[in-house]
Parts: sequence; structure tokens; C-alpha cells
Amino acid sequence: MITAHIVGASGYAAAELIRLIDRHPSVALGVLESRSNAGVAVADVFPALPHVHVLLDDTGTTITRVRPDDIVFIAGGRELARQTVPAFLEAGARVIDLSDAFRLAGSGTDAVFGFPEQYRAQIADARLVANPGCYVTASLLALVPLAGLADRIATVVIDAKSGITGAGRTPTGTSMFAEVDGDVRAYGLDGHRHGAEIVQEARAAGIDAPIVFSPHVVPLKRGILADVYLLPKAPISREEVLATYERFYAASNFVTVFRDLRSPYLPALEGTNDAHIAVAERSGVIQILSAIDNLGKGAAGQAVQNMNLMLGLPEELGLDARTIAR
Amino acid sequence: MITAHIVGASGYAAAELIRLIDRHPSVALGVLESRSNAGVAVADVFPALPHVHVLLDDTGTTITRVRPDDIVFIAGGRELARQTVPAFLEAGARVIDLSDAFRLAGSGTDAVFGFPEQYRAQIADARLVANPGCYVTASLLALVPLAGLADRIATVVIDAKSGITGAGRTPTGTSMFAEVDGDVRAYGLDGHRHGAEIVQEARAAGIDAPIVFSPHVVPLKRGILADVYLLPKAPISREEVLATYERFYAASNFVTVFRDLRSPYLPALEGTNDAHIAVAERSGVIQILSAIDNLGKGAAGQAVQNMNLMLGLPEELGLDARTIAR
Amino acid sequence: MITAHIVGASGYAAAELIRLIDRHPSVALGVLESRSNAGVAVADVFPALPHVHVLLDDTGTTITRVRPDDIVFIAGGRELARQTVPAFLEAGARVIDLSDAFRLAGSGTDAVFGFPEQYRAQIADARLVANPGCYVTASLLALVPLAGLADRIATVVIDAKSGITGAGRTPTGTSMFAEVDGDVRAYGLDGHRHGAEIVQEARAAGIDAPIVFSPHVVPLKRGILADVYLLPKAPISREEVLATYERFYAASNFVTVFRDLRSPYLPALEGTNDAHIAVAERSGVIQILSAIDNLGKGAAGQAVQNMNLMLGLPEELGLDARTIAR
Amino acid sequence: MITAHIVGASGYAAAELIRLIDRHPSVALGVLESRSNAGVAVADVFPALPHVHVLLDDTGTTITRVRPDDIVFIAGGRELARQTVPAFLEAGARVIDLSDAFRLAGSGTDAVFGFPEQYRAQIADARLVANPGCYVTASLLALVPLAGLADRIATVVIDAKSGITGAGRTPTGTSMFAEVDGDVRAYGLDGHRHGAEIVQEARAAGIDAPIVFSPHVVPLKRGILADVYLLPKAPISREEVLATYERFYAASNFVTVFRDLRSPYLPALEGTNDAHIAVAERSGVIQILSAIDNLGKGAAGQAVQNMNLMLGLPEELGLDARTIAR
Repeated sequence: MITAHIVGASGYAAAELIRLIDRHPSVALGVLESRSNAGVAVADVFPALPHVHVLLDDTGTTITRVRPDDIVFIAGGRELARQTVPAFLEAGARVIDLSDAFRLAGSGTDAVFGFPEQYRAQIADARLVANPGCYVTASLLALVPLAGLADRIATVVIDAKSGITGAGRTPTGTSMFAEVDGDVRAYGLDGHRHGAEIVQEARAAGIDAPIVFSPHVVPLKRGILADVYLLPKAPISREEVLATYERFYAASNFVTVFRDLRSPYLPALEGTNDAHIAVAERSGVIQILSAIDNLGKGAAGQAVQNMNLMLGLPEELGLDARTIAR
Repeated sequence: MITAHIVGASGYAAAELIRLIDRHPSVALGVLESRSNAGVAVADVFPALPHVHVLLDDTGTTITRVRPDDIVFIAGGRELARQTVPAFLEAGARVIDLSDAFRLAGSGTDAVFGFPEQYRAQIADARLVANPGCYVTASLLALVPLAGLADRIATVVIDAKSGITGAGRTPTGTSMFAEVDGDVRAYGLDGHRHGAEIVQEARAAGIDAPIVFSPHVVPLKRGILADVYLLPKAPISREEVLATYERFYAASNFVTVFRDLRSPYLPALEGTNDAHIAVAERSGVIQILSAIDNLGKGAAGQAVQNMNLMLGLPEELGLDARTIAR
Repeated sequence: MITAHIVGASGYAAAELIRLIDRHPSVALGVLESRSNAGVAVADVFPALPHVHVLLDDTGTTITRVRPDDIVFIAGGRELARQTVPAFLEAGARVIDLSDAFRLAGSGTDAVFGFPEQYRAQIADARLVANPGCYVTASLLALVPLAGLADRIATVVIDAKSGITGAGRTPTGTSMFAEVDGDVRAYGLDGHRHGAEIVQEARAAGIDAPIVFSPHVVPLKRGILADVYLLPKAPISREEVLATYERFYAASNFVTVFRDLRSPYLPALEGTNDAHIAVAERSGVIQILSAIDNLGKGAAGQAVQNMNLMLGLPEELGLDARTIAR
Repeated sequence: MITAHIVGASGYAAAELIRLIDRHPSVALGVLESRSNAGVAVADVFPALPHVHVLLDDTGTTITRVRPDDIVFIAGGRELARQTVPAFLEAGARVIDLSDAFRLAGSGTDAVFGFPEQYRAQIADARLVANPGCYVTASLLALVPLAGLADRIATVVIDAKSGITGAGRTPTGTSMFAEVDGDVRAYGLDGHRHGAEIVQEARAAGIDAPIVFSPHVVPLKRGILADVYLLPKAPISREEVLATYERFYAASNFVTVFRDLRSPYLPALEGTNDAHIAVAERSGVIQILSAIDNLGKGAAGQAVQNMNLMLGLPEELGLDARTIAR
């Protein structure tokens, strides 16, 4: 058994990580470190995990217990990642950082961008993986395969709708039930920091068109739907896009491409590492619907997928909990 | 007092019409006609109107009671409108049809398109007004003022998010709580019939660019947010768009243009005939946020605004219920 | 015009107070004092009040501006009330405190309990009114009229379901969308401080039976439904209870008693000062359904009703916004 | 492998059954029979089961394919059960009926009441199990263990709050998002047919006190919380009740009794066959909080638990999908 530690274990993505690692056949939970809830049982911090009676450890515990080749997940945000990752790497651990500290090139520390559908081989060899978040993952799932069509794409508009858990577990005025219920809220209207990650990775895949990224909060807990519109400079057909996706995702067990004109159903993705993709076309504009669980493929699920790759395990191990009849 | 009848008085827009007319200072409720609920009190059909004890009348009652210059609202759908409007016009009544029966040119009967911000004068003289619905109104509020920028717009993408009351009150599998809760559902992926209305009116205003209209249902009751993206062929600045709106809506008491980069808040619009508009710009793409109550400015509120114009009354009469300190 | 100041003007009840006073025909908004949002426009603090452009004032402003016979609402909690009320009374103002600082007898300062259905005359003469909250009001509306049946009541069980705005506007872990959505949460399982207020006022009305008060949060924004179960020691009939209510509330324009076996519909009460009451009976147990808007009759609406009484104005003035055809 | 057929496979409980049987290690899906969706793939009927590509069969298919000792689940309602169960029994199948056709004694056909915590042995030998529904299960979990305290219980009041999937999947006016959102609705105010089942089974367990059952719909998809109040005629302590539960459920892997004063968290139960029970006491009244997933322990989960018992399999087989670290 491999040991996986979680540093910053009080948020929603951490809860999902705990749930997934706890049932993983080849990996066991190590230290669960939390500044704000040290000494409290997981079940008391996360009422959705009533059967996990492990206690959370205090800040700084992980570094005293980590052994070479352990996995360390950083789930407590950018600052925490910057402060702790170098020491974990030095201790010989392999680190998967769920924050955005190391995602952009030039972050100071070399990391592999943890989008397995694009960087499977590099992730397998990485010591530090920068695990992308929900908006970025949903967007890249739609964009990255389209490199071959890049010279026909004039502009990309991404209109994304996310559940509120994407905003984290720290209580704020904008995450309260009374504010979220009954509203659809656009934000990042002057630019959203994750837009730069989408652009970086689209560029890396060969897509140079301008990308406008427009995130919204909708009144639901989990799930993200990104409408990715391709404004073409030369015709692109729905069939071409579908065929490209089917080729690109042929070997992926997590990504399903819908042949028919169907909207993904977000509750079907909840708790999974799956992605559902549909494609439409009107007036020459290609509309791609890319849907994931923001805490699954958009955070903890993808982190476990990356961990499996780093450990040389089957990519799907421990991630099949809700999928059926595949 | 003018008398206003409602034909097809069992839906959500009808309930809002009843609420508005009931408190209107110059107009009184006449016949409330409903095939499915004849003989039942309004309060029993609409639990949100517990104090309206009027009984609904049977199909065909209105035509026996209507007098010249009465107002007749048709709120029961396209077929009902086609069947009943000619007789009401013949009887000398003025008709406001909330269905899409007469909105498209070439519908067979001459109607004025009931978008007051564009057709104020024509509506004042009309005998038949085709009242546009929620998606169309939210979209046109953003597009119609931009005629002067038309030659710089390459493509328009409208990504709209609507509450479920926009789908009507007839129970269907897709309007159930258990299906709507927790999901964001794109539809009309092969074209939505209201897209043609948006195109017709944008053309009429001088905007010939292709328009892609993409509606979504989000888990809320009332309210619609349309993200209208302008893909330019020559630069358009946020300031130009803002200034254009401020000029266009200077005389309108219902439309507020936000100077700052703020998302409209849908609950603030509930029960009003107001529209809130914001403008952003990134990578040269203009993003317009246009928000209304789908049952207010998107249906019944606009119908009352049209009625006021037809009656020579102040446009705002009976519509100021929730607005404050204007 | 009378001037009404609001001290502690950043919460949900304060927003509803601002909305109501702003449209009140005989009362004008004075100082709106807020420690946390001084200098900010109401519209920016409360997106649901986009048209109120008044700026919030800093702590301590009201006491420098208040004049004798002004009305001062305290909407910022118990501590604020205790600190500020004596000075306002000394300055000759009439105070309506929405906190629980002065509701229980023996609080140190003489206040009239602001439940107008029981204390109309005393409120008219009061200098300080302790305005009861949502749970207490919903419960007392059901209990207080039943004094004549008191000797037949063995025990009262109140199982109340409240929207989350009842918990206030300060962000906490338990008020976040991601925690409230999908759950029904009982609390106060070892006693809830407002239970004592219910007991005090039931005793004052002559009902000495033990009262078990059990509050719950349900995933909705506004509204409260209290199921009040009367366990009898001698038979009580549904008809007796209905007749008692009809007599007691004959002169009340805010309380509607349903004759039929119908559950109140909470959205019908939103934004009103109304209460809807229904009565059922099974196995000899009387079940009373008492429903209000927790921010209306359960907070700000009732505060305005109390203000009207104190000013000798008609009780309903400024409170008829959403009622229809009465 | 045992074969399990589902007759009436279009509802929410059927979907959950399909999900559970599909992953069950010892049982395989047989015929999935649906009148309304014959010929359609499960994935198209249930968007939450996108990976189940089996086609639904037409009415009457099961009886032509069933073999002795197959399991047949009836999930299509009372009438369907009455019409089909006799033939399935005759064919030698073992039947688990999720409707209420055979739950009450005197229903004409002998069935074992499918509440395993009470009738484990009888279920193991049964040919026909009448699987109780969500309200009944939540209530009995609280009541049945208390037989030893029966002579001290004067009256039982059950105030239950249920998610809307409990109302089934047939679209009706009362199950629409626009009606359920924002409301808490009491119903069954003149008696609810499932109240009689609670009374029957409480009597069978020795509890003869009058039971008032009061169901409510709250705006959530899945989950039920029943507040069960015991009005005593002689003192009952919280500790006694807790100890009784702990003894009664010592061998049960599905029922967790909370020692502390905590409300169950409904999302933690979603997709499980678990029940969470808490106990409070105030003014001598015992309040028991009994929570389950209405589609899990309240329907399909319990049906699979019953099936396991009938097949001599471990009770938990195939039901541990979401439980963790037990």
C-alpha cells in the first residue's frame, strides 16, 4: 500500500479526496493535516463523511511523517502550496497540488500540468503535478483535442456555469444560500485568473485564437457545464469535431462523447471522474457542451487519476464508484 | 375604468397578469377564461394569489362579453391565439397576445411586435400586439440599441439562462423539481423557435450579423440572464456600448444600465418590469449581461406596458410595485 | 412625515425594513447606520434594493441626529440593542428593537412585547417595543387565541420549518448554499433561546401546558411554517379551534384563517405582513399550520405594523404591497 | 448468479434498483419491463444512469421469461402489483413489491412486511415481501425498538419532511420545480394512507398509543427526516431511548444511532441504505430524529436488503457503495 497525505484537509475538494482515497484499493490515507480543524474527527468536519472517524492533524505534521515516494496532496490553497511543496519534494515525496500555485509556466518550481488527457506520460514521471481546477478542466476537455482545427478557429468564447462548491468552503457573503438561491451570477468580468491557464494550455496544444472565458455561479451544489463556442474563420463541421473527439478520447475511460444532440445531465456526473461532451452547430458556430463534477474531474477525481498515473496504477483505480455497466 | 379580459388564464404569465391588472389604477379585470379550470377561484388555481377570489370562466365566455376598446390578453398559447384573435379584433377589442402566433412577419394577421423600447409609437396605435417572450426580450434589450455599431459586429452569440417558469405550467418530465434541481440544461441545440424572432427583430433594427441563440434552464423559478457576446470585425469599445445604451434608454424607466462591472441580481427583478444591463469586454469581445424577470418584462409586465401604451396611459402605470426610490 | 432611523442596517431584516419604510406614505428614512458598511450605498450592500442610493452612516450617527418622537429601529442584534437603546429613549425617541434583548420579562428595561394581535393597546402607548422574531410570531399566532381552551391542552409540540434568512446575514458554515441545499436540519435540540419567549407569552395568554419547541432549517430563502400540535387532556374539536381563530382575528387584516384543509403556500406570503393559518385534527390531536414570511410578519413587517400603532396610523399603512383584492 | 427482474421500471425507485442490482456481485439484471418506455434504453429514460444501455421491455415480458427462484421487483404501483403478483408467485418466483398493495393485513394475499429490522427471519422464508415506503420506514425505525417503553407512551406525533422524489416520477402540478421551490407543504391533513401502515406495525411491535402522522414536502430531491415525538404518560429518559436503540441495532450495519445531540445530515445518506437516528428530550417529551434516503432505505435499498435476506446472502451485499471506513 502507498500512503497518501492531505495537507489542507478542510475544504470540499479535500473531503472528496478523503472519500476517494479511503476506498482506494492500493493507497491508504496518511496524515490529514488541517490548521483550522486539528484534533477534530473527519466525520465532524464533513457531515457527508459520517463514517470516517480519523482525526485531523495539526499544521506541520505531514512533513514530520512523510517518507520517500509517499504521495502528498495539497488541498489548502496557493499560499499553503508555496510554503510547503519545496520541503515535500526535498523529502522525496511526490506532490499533487490542487491549488493554482504552480500551474502557470514561470511559477518558479517545475511542475507538470495535471491534465492527464494531454500529459499522461509526463505525469507518470513527475514529482510535482499542478492539478487544474474545474473551469480549466472543463474547458480544456473541449479545446485540447481540436489542435488539428486550430487554423480555422477565429475566436473561442467559453460561457461556464458552475455549482457553488467551486468557490470553496470558507463562508463568504457570496456563497450563502440566501444569496446564491434564485440567482445566476456572472463574475470575472474583468478577467478571471484561471482564464490564463486555459490560454496557456490551449496555446500549448496549438490553439492560438483569442479565448474569452466567462464564469457564472448557478444555484446548485456540484457540477459544471462549460459552453465552448468556436467562432470559425473557415468552416468547421459538427461531424469533424465529433470525429476528432472520438479519436482523441478513444482510449479514455472517463470521457464520453455524445453522438446525439443531448445536453449532459450534471447529477449523472456527481461523485465521478467522468466528463460528458456534446457538440452542436448553428449558423456555422460550433457549440461544445463540456460537463464534469467540479469536485470530481474538476478537482479530487482528477487528482486521484494523476496519482494513479504517477504510481503506475491503472488510471481508473478507485474511481469507478458511480459508473455503471462500462 | 378600462376592462381587461384574460383568455387562457391558468398559466404562470396569466397569474402575473392577474396580479398586475388587479392592482392597476385604471384597468379592471374582466373575464378570466380558462378551459382547464372553469368554475374554480383564482385563489385555488394560483396559491400565490390567495386573495383573488374571482372565479375563472369557461372557454368562449370572453367573446360574449367583450366590448369595443376592451383589452383582451391571450395567455393560453399559440393555438388558442390563432383560434380566438380574429373574432376579438372583429368585435373591436384591442388584443395583446403573449404567444408566438403572430410575432413572425408573415403570420397571416398584421400585428405590431410588442417590444416597446423599439416600437413605442406603433404599439400606441395597434389593435393587435404580439408580445415577445422572455428570451427574445432579454436578447433584444441588448441588441436593438446597437444598430449604429452593426457594421462592426461579425457574429452574435447569445447564451441565455432561464428559470423554469419560462417553460410554462403544464407538468412535464423536464419541469419537475427532481429533474431541474442540481442541473443546468442546454436545449434548442438544433435551433430554437424563438431564435427566429431575435433574428427578425435584430435585422429590423439593422443588425445583420449571424446570431447563435443558446438557451439553458437553470434551477431557479423566475429570472433570466442572457449573456450576449459580440464578436467584432472591427474594434468596439465597452465605453461605446455603454454610451449607446445610456442614450437609447435615457427615457426608459424600466431599463437600468450599470456603469460598473457588476452582474445583475435576478431576485432584484422579480415581480418587476425592470431590466438590468451590464457590459464587459475582454480580448476585444463585448459581453452584455441582460437580465429580466421572465414573467415580468419577459411576459406579463411587458404586456401591461404595451397595454398602457395602447391606452395612452403612462407607460409605468401599475408597474411600479417593487421599484424603489426612483 | 415622521422620520425612522435604522441602527444596524446590514442584515436581511434591515433590508426589508428599508424597502418598507422607503415606500411608506407617512414615514421617511432617516439615518441608516451600519458599522460594517458605513459609507456604502444601500444598493451596493443589498443587491435586492438596486434603486436605493442612500449611503449607510457610521456607528453613532443616529444618536447625534435623532429628534424626540422619531422612530428608531434596532436591527443589529442583542448587544447593539443593549448598548444603544437607553440613549435613544433618553433622547425622546420611540424604539422598536428587532433583537431579543428586551423580550423576556426581567430584561432590565421595560418594553412592550411587540405582538400586536395581543398587545395592540399597550404598543400604541409604548416607548420601547421588543419586536418578536419569526419562530415566536408564527407560534404565538397559533397559540395566543386559544386561551379559552387552555385547560384542555396537555402539551404543545411546535415543529417549525424556517428559511435560512432567519439565521441572519453573517456568513457561517451552516448558512452556506452547499450546506443548506439538500438537507433539513433540526437544531436547538437542547433548548432554543426563543422557546422561552413562546412560553412566556403563552403563559401570559393563559396557556400553562408544557411547550416543546423544535426549529428546523429547510432549503429555502424566506418563509416559515410552524406545525403546532395540541395534545389534549379533554377533547378539542377542529371546529372549536377554527371558530376561536375566526373570532380572534376578525378585526385583523393580516391574518387569514383557512376553513378548508389546505397547507399555506409560503411564496404567497413573501414580502407581506400576512399570516396564513390552517387547522387539522387526527386521533384527537389538533394540528395548526401557521405560516408567515420570516422577514415580514416575522421581523420587519411586524416592526412596521408596531410603528404604525405607535404613531396612531392605520395598522396596514405601507404594508399592503403584495396583498390583493382584500 | 441470481436473476432479478423489475416490473414497472420507469420510476425513481426503479432507477435506484437498476443502479444497485447492476453493481450487485451475486445478482444480475433480467427483464426491465416498462409500459411507458418499452424499447427505450435505460440511459435515455434515466439520465442519471448514462452507462446502462439495456433496453426496457414491453409490458408482459417478464412473465414469459421468469424462472423459478428468480427475484421479481414490482416498482410500478399498486394496481400493477395486484395484477401481476399472483402470476409471478405461481411461476415460482420470489416477489418484492415496492407498492402498498400488500402491506396492510387483509390485503388478500399473504405477504411478509419487508422491514428487515423487525422481520428478518420471516423475510428470509418469504415468497412475497411487501416492501414499506419511505415515511413508514423512517417512522418504524424510530418506533419499533421502543416496545419495552410502550406502556409509558401516551401519544406519538410524527412530523415528517420528505424530498419530492417520494411523490414519484409522474409529472403533476405539485411536483413541478416552480411549485416545490420555496415552499414547505403539509399534506395528508385528513389522514394519509401510509399512516395506517405505521399504526399496524407499531401495534404489531406492541405500541398501542395513538399515532398522528403528518407528512410534508420540502424543496429537496432525496432524503427524509422524520421527527418522532413521544408524549409520555410516565417519564421516559433520553438515555433509556438511546440504550434501547443501541441494543436493538447492535447487529445492524445500516442503522447508526448518534450519542450526541446532532441532526442527521441528509446528503450523507444519499445513495445508501443507511439510517441515522438521534434522540433529544425537552419538557419530558422525547424527540427522535430518524433520517434515511427515501429512495434508499425508504425504497430500493431496503428492497435489495430484503432480496439479500431472501437469497441467504449477507444483508449488506451490494449496498455498501457509499459507506466508508466501517
